[in-house]
Amino acid sequence: MNQITAGLNASSDVVTETPSRRYERALMLRYLKIIASPRIAIRFWDGETVLANSDSPIATVHIKTRATMYRMLCQQDVGFGDEYSAGRLEIEGDLVDFLLEFYRGQTEAKSNSKFYKMLDKVLTRVPKVNNVSGSEQNIHHHYDLSNDFYKLWLDGGMQYTCAYFPQKTLSLEQAQQAKLDHVCRKLELKPGDRVVEAGCGWGGLARHMAVYYGAVVTAYNISNEQIRYATSRAKKEGYADSVKYIKDDYRNAKESCDKFVSIGMLEHVGLNHFSELGKVIDRCLTKNGRVLIHTIGRNQSRYMNAWIEKRIFPGAYPPTLKEMMDVFEPQNFSVLDVENLRLHYAKTLQQWLHRFDQNEATVQSMFDQNFVRAWRMYLAGSISAFLFSSLQLFQVVAARGQDNTVPWNREHLYSKH
Amino acid sequence: MNQITAGLNASSDVVTETPSRRYERALMLRYLKIIASPRIAIRFWDGETVLANSDSPIATVHIKTRATMYRMLCQQDVGFGDEYSAGRLEIEGDLVDFLLEFYRGQTEAKSNSKFYKMLDKVLTRVPKVNNVSGSEQNIHHHYDLSNDFYKLWLDGGMQYTCAYFPQKTLSLEQAQQAKLDHVCRKLELKPGDRVVEAGCGWGGLARHMAVYYGAVVTAYNISNEQIRYATSRAKKEGYADSVKYIKDDYRNAKESCDKFVSIGMLEHVGLNHFSELGKVIDRCLTKNGRVLIHTIGRNQSRYMNAWIEKRIFPGAYPPTLKEMMDVFEPQNFSVLDVENLRLHYAKTLQQWLHRFDQNEATVQSMFDQNFVRAWRMYLAGSISAFLFSSLQLFQVVAARGQDNTVPWNREHLYSKH
Repeated sequence: MNQITAGLNASSDVVTETPSRRYERALMLRYLKIIASPRIAIRFWDGETVLANSDSPIATVHIKTRATMYRMLCQQDVGFGDEYSAGRLEIEGDLVDFLLEFYRGQTEAKSNSKFYKMLDKVLTRVPKVNNVSGSEQNIHHHYDLSNDFYKLWLDGGMQYTCAYFPQKTLSLEQAQQAKLDHVCRKLELKPGDRVVEAGCGWGGLARHMAVYYGAVVTAYNISNEQIRYATSRAKKEGYADSVKYIKDDYRNAKESCDKFVSIGMLEHVGLNHFSELGKVIDRCLTKNGRVLIHTIGRNQSRYMNAWIEKRIFPGAYPPTLKEMMDVFEPQNFSVLDVENLRLHYAKTLQQWLHRFDQNEATVQSMFDQNFVRAWRMYLAGSISAFLFSSLQLFQVVAARGQDNTVPWNREHLYSKH
Repeated sequence: MNQITAGLNASSDVVTETPSRRYERALMLRYLKIIASPRIAIRFWDGETVLANSDSPIATVHIKTRATMYRMLCQQDVGFGDEYSAGRLEIEGDLVDFLLEFYRGQTEAKSNSKFYKMLDKVLTRVPKVNNVSGSEQNIHHHYDLSNDFYKLWLDGGMQYTCAYFPQKTLSLEQAQQAKLDHVCRKLELKPGDRVVEAGCGWGGLARHMAVYYGAVVTAYNISNEQIRYATSRAKKEGYADSVKYIKDDYRNAKESCDKFVSIGMLEHVGLNHFSELGKVIDRCLTKNGRVLIHTIGRNQSRYMNAWIEKRIFPGAYPPTLKEMMDVFEPQNFSVLDVENLRLHYAKTLQQWLHRFDQNEATVQSMFDQNFVRAWRMYLAGSISAFLFSSLQLFQVVAARGQDNTVPWNREHLYSKH
């Protein structure tokens, strides 16, 4: 059984359950009312149904066991995610639509219900800390699952971060290429540039920089599987001279570089390590160098969704722009450009989920049904989070404080190439 | 005598001064060495000269009286600015180049000399507070000087904020128009949009929005002179139906609006009022509204230059991006776009200084020689500050947290119109 769904026992008590009691139905109705009476019905294991909203529901939550109901109430997001993964909780209707309606209700409850706010505070899970060895554990948990698994639903370049769709009609493949170009243009990348990349995934950006821009890249990553994939691909495709993939923590980077880039790593770094990252950049970057940090973020400071943090991304913390400034300000970096690509991530995830669903049988044969359900909840939950704007996607470009070679304006990002 | 140079007595003791003493020359040499031996010579009132750098100096500071020397040392920026304004201190050489060299030295001293750091801390002036009546006083100090004075060196649209030069060859007039268009595009301004503008200066942006975009603008300002000018111009030019200039504090704005804009006001608002501004925006802005805040800023948190804050802009405080987030985060606004136009402000100020110098005789006849000198120091000092990157220019665009009508990308800012 995979680590993600370990501890979730497929329940066998579905049929032996005694019928739902009147106070249990009242309790769930009360719960629905606290979360602003969403258009969500709840069906109990015995077929009884409650609904707080007079409009026809957009989805029904089917609670298959009594224990599931109480886990959901007491463990909130974690209970919900786990019970769904284990198949003891079913969503009838579109999963993303349901989650959007549910988030809307939760958000309203957080600002209107003192009781819910208290509950939320008490039950909030404090994420793991990311020291060097903790980071390794956390990252292995997710990125070392298996390259074959990710190949099923990522693009050919194995980009596991937000794509950029200059036109909405682009394919995932095209949009990931467009993202790489967008990043390279923001970095004003030119032939011969020495780049340090912190957190290189399967090496797609480093490859793109070497092959299409003539850059020389040193790319750090602590995931074994990813480094192995990236290195062997570089050899096979003949750009191994220009890219060095290093299995090490980004905090050990010491190379002098013209460009420092990090795509989709900061959300795994942990708030208390931001200034450390700033120091690493300061140590590596030349006088007229450029920095680009691309990360999932927040409008307001808040822990990661507890289930995602526990089962999918241990140690993850999406920072606010204010929090991100701890990378830049202590070292007197000058922020030149911030772009929020939130809706591009929703679109990216929709395409991933679509491909994932198309490959459901294969995924199930590689793992198990619980894994499929957990992963679907994670992808659908992320789509909803970006659509609902509880997550953002920030690309921040910076330079050294006193660098007057910074680009005059941003037209070069949009001229046709 | 104008308020700016009040208290600066033109000195008559220049000729009666006893010669500089050996320890005084040693003291100034020591001072030069502490500030990293810049290529600056110091000439005393008796013609004696000291120089800490073996290269030929790019400028000479001529200290005309003994008291001037001690005021410079004890009151730092304030002493320097005041003594220059009073004509008891002369810079021989290019003023901007001198200031850049001086800032470079100061900055190095701040990071290397414990003594200088201590001095800097002890002598730092804490700026004024901006309650509603305090703001009025502070703003009258500067903006009510006289419209005729500002007309001498601003563009025809009376934009007293950073221009935008899409091409470096644009005239000041063209670049100010380009700035207004850049702002309107960032706000996705369309006919019929209701705009609230906080701090409207002489009304140029409101005028542009009404005349060229068909918007309906309510513009707030607490400067009498500016409101009078803006209102009479709107009547004369026939757009008074679309623009209401209101002499009131922005904190009293209550109108529902589609766009909320503030150009060059936040640096006068004061840090402890940022969240209040956020609340005002939240009160006014419709569901799918846009916000744009354009302000002088910093890479690192620091008080305004003490002389500028005392003599030119009482209460001014240029925030860091981190500090700016206090406007947006508490109200769950989503930051969509940040652009740093620092070098555009240096270019704008260069053009202002050039026009100012061309009109020196007129300015002197309106005020006095001290005023001319103070103003030149302020403009040259600001050019240096933007070139040296101790000041930034941030344009921040935001929307409500859950607004999915936000623009898909930023290409519309750069397509030819």
